[in-house]
Amino acid sequence: MSTAVSPLAPTDVPAMPVVAGIRLATAAAGIRYKGRTDVLLAVLDSGTSVAGVFTKSKCASAPVEWCRARLGRGGGTARALVVNSGNANAFTGKTGKQATTLTAELAAKALGCKPSEVLLASTGVIGEPLDASKFDGVLATLAREAQPGAWMEAAKAIMTTDTFPKVATATVKLGKAKVTINGMAKGAGMIAPDMATMLSFIFTDAPIAAATLQALLKSGVEDTFNAVTIDGDTSTSDTLLAFATGAAAARGAPRITKAGDPRLKAFAKAFHTVLADLAEQVARDGEGARKLVEIIVEGATSKPSARRIAMSIANSPLVKTAIAGEDANWGRVVMAVGKAGEPADRDRLSISFNGIRVASRGARHPSYDEAEVSRAMKNPKIQIKVAMGLGQGRDRVLTCDLTKEYVAINGDYRS
Amino acid sequence: MSTAVSPLAPTDVPAMPVVAGIRLATAAAGIRYKGRTDVLLAVLDSGTSVAGVFTKSKCASAPVEWCRARLGRGGGTARALVVNSGNANAFTGKTGKQATTLTAELAAKALGCKPSEVLLASTGVIGEPLDASKFDGVLATLAREAQPGAWMEAAKAIMTTDTFPKVATATVKLGKAKVTINGMAKGAGMIAPDMATMLSFIFTDAPIAAATLQALLKSGVEDTFNAVTIDGDTSTSDTLLAFATGAAAARGAPRITKAGDPRLKAFAKAFHTVLADLAEQVARDGEGARKLVEIIVEGATSKPSARRIAMSIANSPLVKTAIAGEDANWGRVVMAVGKAGEPADRDRLSISFNGIRVASRGARHPSYDEAEVSRAMKNPKIQIKVAMGLGQGRDRVLTCDLTKEYVAINGDYRS
Repeated sequence: MSTAVSPLAPTDVPAMPVVAGIRLATAAAGIRYKGRTDVLLAVLDSGTSVAGVFTKSKCASAPVEWCRARLGRGGGTARALVVNSGNANAFTGKTGKQATTLTAELAAKALGCKPSEVLLASTGVIGEPLDASKFDGVLATLAREAQPGAWMEAAKAIMTTDTFPKVATATVKLGKAKVTINGMAKGAGMIAPDMATMLSFIFTDAPIAAATLQALLKSGVEDTFNAVTIDGDTSTSDTLLAFATGAAAARGAPRITKAGDPRLKAFAKAFHTVLADLAEQVARDGEGARKLVEIIVEGATSKPSARRIAMSIANSPLVKTAIAGEDANWGRVVMAVGKAGEPADRDRLSISFNGIRVASRGARHPSYDEAEVSRAMKNPKIQIKVAMGLGQGRDRVLTCDLTKEYVAINGDYRS
Repeated sequence: MSTAVSPLAPTDVPAMPVVAGIRLATAAAGIRYKGRTDVLLAVLDSGTSVAGVFTKSKCASAPVEWCRARLGRGGGTARALVVNSGNANAFTGKTGKQATTLTAELAAKALGCKPSEVLLASTGVIGEPLDASKFDGVLATLAREAQPGAWMEAAKAIMTTDTFPKVATATVKLGKAKVTINGMAKGAGMIAPDMATMLSFIFTDAPIAAATLQALLKSGVEDTFNAVTIDGDTSTSDTLLAFATGAAAARGAPRITKAGDPRLKAFAKAFHTVLADLAEQVARDGEGARKLVEIIVEGATSKPSARRIAMSIANSPLVKTAIAGEDANWGRVVMAVGKAGEPADRDRLSISFNGIRVASRGARHPSYDEAEVSRAMKNPKIQIKVAMGLGQGRDRVLTCDLTKEYVAINGDYRS
């Protein structure tokens, strides 16, 4: 955990405003790490609606199963969120399920709500039993201490190998009332769709019904969290929850119950911006990352085809190590296009790095200048654009390079 | 190219016997590297049948397209094989096609055969035009110098980032005659199915018709080359060719024209052993490899399902870096099972490392002893066995660990 802050960390960290109806508190429960906070309690006002999307892993963690059971298909209501870092409570069998139940009961007791109104998320090592009795007392204290302004502390408490806390915020009008959307995320490794972050939480005071929030979330992740990959590995614990307290209704915000409501348009856009901001921060904090890499595939036969080609490039160890070496090795991009299994015509393919055309129509570009491209590769942000020349399908994904530091971080994580 | 020999290199390198009807010669044509051989000519007696399997990349190299056109569907006949290392002649457009034609013409002229009887393979950098005029003169010299015993020289000439030449041999009875099967391969990186090696060539003096040889090859690769992955990246140039000179017919070997011929049984087994030996050597020489990793998945719903789960584990950067760190991080194995998208029941899953049970039925094994497992992880060969508990599907794949050296090799390859 002694890794220096990623050189790709955003330099402008927003001041996080209060979101009416939300209070936050963190503590060091000693789950795994010593001397750092590792548990977050978010206390939600009565009437908060919640929606969520989760990992597609067939071996989902106990907290993911807990949340899925709470949310059902259309979202639900919530009074609290408990997040711990250091232990994922995944592949922990019956004791894992018992740990989720105990955690929810402890939080419910502290807040005077039902256990079923408590949502849970855990991140960290897989396969270690989580001793939820460590939350006894801690959650009661957190319930008392929770306050509206503790956003950065909250974002820090959910980190594992992250090198910086990830927050984003937006303020937008809903009807005539200003509403706020605050989000936080943690990522770093085992990051791949679907979805691309291990944990992310979005909070708003807008009065939005759970089913509507669920629809917003589902469409919102597609081009944000689901379009980020660090290492192609999908966590057992990926969890993205959105909470809407509805407190802005007191200031005249209309209650939205349909995803198609025209009054939702500006909100939906801001919500998407917050998701996109957090997802990009996850890529910027990929384990060992020194380059933020944007892959754009255009001219594919469809958007899903463009996505699969872009992901094939983004997950190629050979492409990623070349970028780490500041080598514009576009031959490996050709390789990754070729292995994607999608329609491709070698002799129509064109490729550029940071706007410099390196290959056109199936061969090296006539004016290719290795020195010019090599200079461009020193940029901390690398854009690889591939024109397939087949159709109108376009997509974009974000990733990072693959460095020796990634290997070091992941060769030593447990020991 | 200064990398030390892989610690996983086989210690017993076989003495390669002569294969009647084959002569070999190598030269330094200066394609890319200085001071090392980079071109191989294999001269084949008249009547040699040939079969091949190739990359499934949608961006196949010019030599792959050349060979496919020569072989058609059922294999064909061949008089020569020309292989160069240093330049893959891939994504080279029209000039790539011209280079294959010129190379075949030069070889045909040197040997007095037709260009269509010459097979070609190239390995190395993608996207650089291959100057085939460098073969002018060289191929004529090689045709004169070719001799039956130059197997190790041949295996060395086709290397790129390989740290040792890969050869295998078997002698077996076909009818009452002894026949020989010799093989060579080069691998190292961009190794994934299908198929798993960039280049491999098998030579036998057995009289086997092209279509029969093709059938043997197709079934033979399935559990050998197609069950090896280094980095999940599929080359544009993967080529496996098998040549049967038929010279053993003069010693009484029967001519085999049907894959179902019972006289082929022992030969087919020996052929498979040579493929398996070479495929394992490719895994042992994965770029930066320090551990040979065997993944066995059993109890899956089918063999293809077991293969996909095993490949998901074998290609996981997090599993591979953990093994590099000698960390029995079975949680990451659970993750990789979960992300494979195949039927899996977390609560039936059991996992062992080198025979030591670490997880049973969805949780840490009761007698799990981290110190014991950590000792086992120091072994240069690691076997991960996953029991799915669902059915009878079983499969096995080979891979290697992901080390800092892999990143170093691939971050510097071109520069």
